[in-house]
Amino acid sequence: MSERQAVFNLYFRRHPFRGGFSIVCGLEQAIGYIQKFKFDESDLSFLSQIRQTDSKPLFEPPFIDFLAKLKPTCDVDAIPEGTIVFPQEPLLRVTGPLALCQILETPLLNTINFQTLIATKAARICLAAEGDPVMEFGLRRAHGYDGGISASRAAFAGGCDGTSNLLAGKLFGIPVRGTHAHSWVMAFETEEEAFRKYAEALPDNSILLVDTYKTIDGVRNAIKTGAWLRRMGYRLGGIRLDSGDLIALSIETRRMLDEGGLSETSIVASGDLDEYEIRKLKLSGAPIDSWGIGTRLVTAFDEPSMGCVYKLSALRKPGEVWKPKLKISDGGKSSIPGILQVRRFQANGQYCGDVLFDETEPPASWVDPVEINKGMLRSLDQCDTFEDLLVPVMRDGRAVAAPPALVEIRQRTGRQLACLKPEMKRFTGAEIYPVGLERKLHELRMRLMQRDLEQTER
Amino acid sequence: MSERQAVFNLYFRRHPFRGGFSIVCGLEQAIGYIQKFKFDESDLSFLSQIRQTDSKPLFEPPFIDFLAKLKPTCDVDAIPEGTIVFPQEPLLRVTGPLALCQILETPLLNTINFQTLIATKAARICLAAEGDPVMEFGLRRAHGYDGGISASRAAFAGGCDGTSNLLAGKLFGIPVRGTHAHSWVMAFETEEEAFRKYAEALPDNSILLVDTYKTIDGVRNAIKTGAWLRRMGYRLGGIRLDSGDLIALSIETRRMLDEGGLSETSIVASGDLDEYEIRKLKLSGAPIDSWGIGTRLVTAFDEPSMGCVYKLSALRKPGEVWKPKLKISDGGKSSIPGILQVRRFQANGQYCGDVLFDETEPPASWVDPVEINKGMLRSLDQCDTFEDLLVPVMRDGRAVAAPPALVEIRQRTGRQLACLKPEMKRFTGAEIYPVGLERKLHELRMRLMQRDLEQTER
Repeated sequence: MSERQAVFNLYFRRHPFRGGFSIVCGLEQAIGYIQKFKFDESDLSFLSQIRQTDSKPLFEPPFIDFLAKLKPTCDVDAIPEGTIVFPQEPLLRVTGPLALCQILETPLLNTINFQTLIATKAARICLAAEGDPVMEFGLRRAHGYDGGISASRAAFAGGCDGTSNLLAGKLFGIPVRGTHAHSWVMAFETEEEAFRKYAEALPDNSILLVDTYKTIDGVRNAIKTGAWLRRMGYRLGGIRLDSGDLIALSIETRRMLDEGGLSETSIVASGDLDEYEIRKLKLSGAPIDSWGIGTRLVTAFDEPSMGCVYKLSALRKPGEVWKPKLKISDGGKSSIPGILQVRRFQANGQYCGDVLFDETEPPASWVDPVEINKGMLRSLDQCDTFEDLLVPVMRDGRAVAAPPALVEIRQRTGRQLACLKPEMKRFTGAEIYPVGLERKLHELRMRLMQRDLEQTER
Repeated sequence: MSERQAVFNLYFRRHPFRGGFSIVCGLEQAIGYIQKFKFDESDLSFLSQIRQTDSKPLFEPPFIDFLAKLKPTCDVDAIPEGTIVFPQEPLLRVTGPLALCQILETPLLNTINFQTLIATKAARICLAAEGDPVMEFGLRRAHGYDGGISASRAAFAGGCDGTSNLLAGKLFGIPVRGTHAHSWVMAFETEEEAFRKYAEALPDNSILLVDTYKTIDGVRNAIKTGAWLRRMGYRLGGIRLDSGDLIALSIETRRMLDEGGLSETSIVASGDLDEYEIRKLKLSGAPIDSWGIGTRLVTAFDEPSMGCVYKLSALRKPGEVWKPKLKISDGGKSSIPGILQVRRFQANGQYCGDVLFDETEPPASWVDPVEINKGMLRSLDQCDTFEDLLVPVMRDGRAVAAPPALVEIRQRTGRQLACLKPEMKRFTGAEIYPVGLERKLHELRMRLMQRDLEQTER
């Protein structure tokens, strides 16, 4: 059975953060994982040593041999990173031998779940920032080294402008940004001396963190440094406010900077910020120019997990045709069977709806597809254009093309968000984007659900 | 200045999860990081290529050379992994050249923050399980690969009994446990056949996941498999309930198993569980024997970040004595200066309080140390014994001893929790464990705060 061909879909059932959209991310790492997939000698040795309770080996030698020979001979079709995606849509479709596909379940979920979560969070934060630069400052609070590295990548893909994570800068080409530590200030006799030494070392790139002691005194010391920099032919880049009442402090800081002739010096705010805090500060008229976002971005603090699942949707015995598969459980949750593709329709530069269909069945009609998510799916005949979202990325374990550059993924995110109606980008209470099933696929799903229900009632 | 000797403390200001204790974890990885610390050729090349806005190099060649020669020549004293820790206590104390200590800030925080968070969550979950086996099942929802691997390690250190993460089993010797996937069931014509084939493959180790279709039908099919196993001289290990009303389902499943002569077969519950859900199920009398905990454990779902900070506490110029350092900022948050050690007092097998003191000053008296956290610190003269928690783990960049085995760390967690009063282990509203400052340290801190306040008022 392990060699039967299977199709698995990786998808989620609802958006994180009670939002109206998600940004898919992590495909490059998922594909990289599959390309390098193998059980090496140390893995096989470990697995063959695991014992059952009665001390017999858990895995018998033929199975260990099977794993030793297992190669990642699968095909992957996927929605490109940086694309807006919706519940039920396959983000990845993996086709290959059943056992291989099952073994890939956990690493694929791990990679796509996390990066999609963070890219989505970053996109929300950048929407709140309304075009201001947003820096990701989260490594110290991220979940382990890779929780930091992957988060920096996904945050940039979702729209951030830079990271304080130098290794992520090196690995992914993300612009690196930062300020000095509080301990820089504490290492000098006075804050003023600390600022001056920092400005001497980085005259064209000084952002001064002013809250080591009293913030307003810090601003005053920074202004002195700014005056010195101006005399030397430079300008003070920015002042970073990292604690306290950011509304009052930013207004006062702006006033002091302007009075001190430093109107070009910008104000960077940080400290437990997220899309809600940024919006609140914006609405309060806080004169903040750019944003450093750490914990609440890289841990997706208010909902730190994306619920992607990975379900079998078709199975094929050698020489036979695909047999669609469906999982229906108590709560009425049902997967969508078949070899799925997602078609996105567009009119006047706005996305108007997505329709899932089975690639092996030519679509019957786009008039009146069956809604599956309570969105308002209208007839799609009036749409100008459409695009099929899943594209081949791997064939027989080999990548079909080099992955796009991260900066292209980030641009894609921006273009995609521009095509989504504003009411679907609300942080909560967003209008639901319509996703439907092509009619024949809907009928297949209903038939399979009916059959399963009858089977269990017998 | 980069060569001045500095002391940095890594500590947190409040427990995660509104709890009354934390379990420190991650030291082995932190020390491993420092041991391997170096800027390699590719790092140096990347850093030297970073440009400022005016296209000058951000880092000048002498600084790149400095980094090339930088070796991790620091000392580390730390509280052993698996120890109960409280706010303000240095978990790690790093002593070494100022610049090196500053560069280590982020990786040390990353490692200790995350593993301490997860070990603490695991300890809470295991307390709720009241001795039932708890399995960590979280890899697919963890934050990247290392977010999974590190979480599996910390979850075991905190008290879990096993993991479904095979790589963590291989790397750390954690017992591996698991069940089959839903897709195993879907790959067969019927659920009964799927269960039978699984039992044939693993007759002594079968835990059957019964909610692929209708749960109660799944239980019925599992019981048939159990009867077959018994005829073959084995017994069905367990039934796993992964969705639905776990109270009603576990009661019904237990009844059906007992009626079917499978009273030895246990019930495993999983599906978005945490300490609160487990306690609720226990209080409802749900006959659940063991627990599979995923998302809410490995992401620390209800509070996915630990707020450890890393602050300079002393500085020394060549040939001079240590100069204590303190950071006081607007909110009244103040760090504790000096070369800190933590002394834990014990009476009748129960911890009665911790006192921080400066190692370079012999403690004045343990009578009436100054409380810093609103706990009820009584005179400590009546305590039987005490222990100093920070022990040397690294000298001049070399580990002083092999790290303890993970299973020893886990045992330490268990022993430590047994010495903490039950009212301090409540999930919320816990009684505060008393932590105080030795009187001379308190006076030093007050003096430095006063001096800083006067400085800023001038």
